[in-house]
Amino acid sequence: MNKIITIGREFGSGGREIGKRLAEKLGIAYYDKEIMSEIANRTQLAEQYVHQIIEQGPQVFFPITTGRTLHHQYNAPDYLFKQYNAVYTAQATVLRELAEKSSCVIVGRCADYILRDMNPLRLFIYAEMPAKVKRCRLKAELHENLSDKELMKKIRRIDKSRAKYYQYYTGHKWGKHENYDLCINTTSLDVKHVAELLENLIRADMETE
Amino acid sequence: MNKIITIGREFGSGGREIGKRLAEKLGIAYYDKEIMSEIANRTQLAEQYVHQIIEQGPQVFFPITTGRTLHHQYNAPDYLFKQYNAVYTAQATVLRELAEKSSCVIVGRCADYILRDMNPLRLFIYAEMPAKVKRCRLKAELHENLSDKELMKKIRRIDKSRAKYYQYYTGHKWGKHENYDLCINTTSLDVKHVAELLENLIRADMETE
Repeated sequence: MNKIITIGREFGSGGREIGKRLAEKLGIAYYDKEIMSEIANRTQLAEQYVHQIIEQGPQVFFPITTGRTLHHQYNAPDYLFKQYNAVYTAQATVLRELAEKSSCVIVGRCADYILRDMNPLRLFIYAEMPAKVKRCRLKAELHENLSDKELMKKIRRIDKSRAKYYQYYTGHKWGKHENYDLCINTTSLDVKHVAELLENLIRADMETE
Repeated sequence: MNKIITIGREFGSGGREIGKRLAEKLGIAYYDKEIMSEIANRTQLAEQYVHQIIEQGPQVFFPITTGRTLHHQYNAPDYLFKQYNAVYTAQATVLRELAEKSSCVIVGRCADYILRDMNPLRLFIYAEMPAKVKRCRLKAELHENLSDKELMKKIRRIDKSRAKYYQYYTGHKWGKHENYDLCINTTSLDVKHVAELLENLIRADMETE
């Protein structure tokens, strides 16, 4: 059976970097934004829109700039929820197809839950706030206009959305240890060492099977 | 500086075995019951009594078999709490002495918190209930008189006591990922592989320092 590694991660914790390094070391596929593109193609939604739904969760937004009657407001949620759920379902289908095709590392997207019958190695990557801020600052172009306070607010907002999204679609608590096989704090652990350790663990487990 | 590895663990999760294997691989000291003996010697309390306090937490017990007046009942908690706290303080002193002497693995005893200024690698080992029951059954002599239901009850009771004890003395939540560097689920991971991967990680980290 294909080896599936799923990664849940706090924003700025280095989960994506660990996922990329690990996939490279193991010589297997790596997915995150690619999946979103695939979903966007299938559901005819703009990639940006899908991204927004995934990051901000299935809450309903009423753009203030759009004039709506109360009647429309009452009708809207059902319509929007259907759309959100359609995106989630399309995403789940794509995830499964990809996982059945070959061994892979998948970052985010509730993959641990969606692929639970494929016995994935479920990782959760997290870090203390100062470490996350520091890591975000390394990608300066993305955050250079934000003060530390604004950046921390952004990190908290994104993580809150991810937690909501995960809770809504899986019924489980995001980041709670019982939902994962390994929870890794990158505050004092080097992501390169973490990727190595994971590679060793997975190779050892594959030899046993 | 000495390398300190602390292990919090659910009952039956294999945390102790991982600790022992890891200490052996790294060629460093391993402590759990030894510490208790040391404490018992210092505080002149029977080892069994110390063990009971550590496992059942700092709650106050009134043995029903002992006749007490209300007056005695009101006075007792303060006295007992002092004794519990004396045990904890003695334990903390011993822990620190041991950790300053040499690199070591310490299982339980809030060592992660007590030695927090020594930058320990803080592990939490856990597993799903069926895996814990299965592991306990391997030590048949300890649990052979218990039904599965009784054994699960025992596991839950011990873990609840550990959580209470940890919360009381550290102010933190036992098993919550932010209090640890690595949380490891032994339900599907082999404890031998886990010990190996920890060894590699610690050696890599020591080389970097």
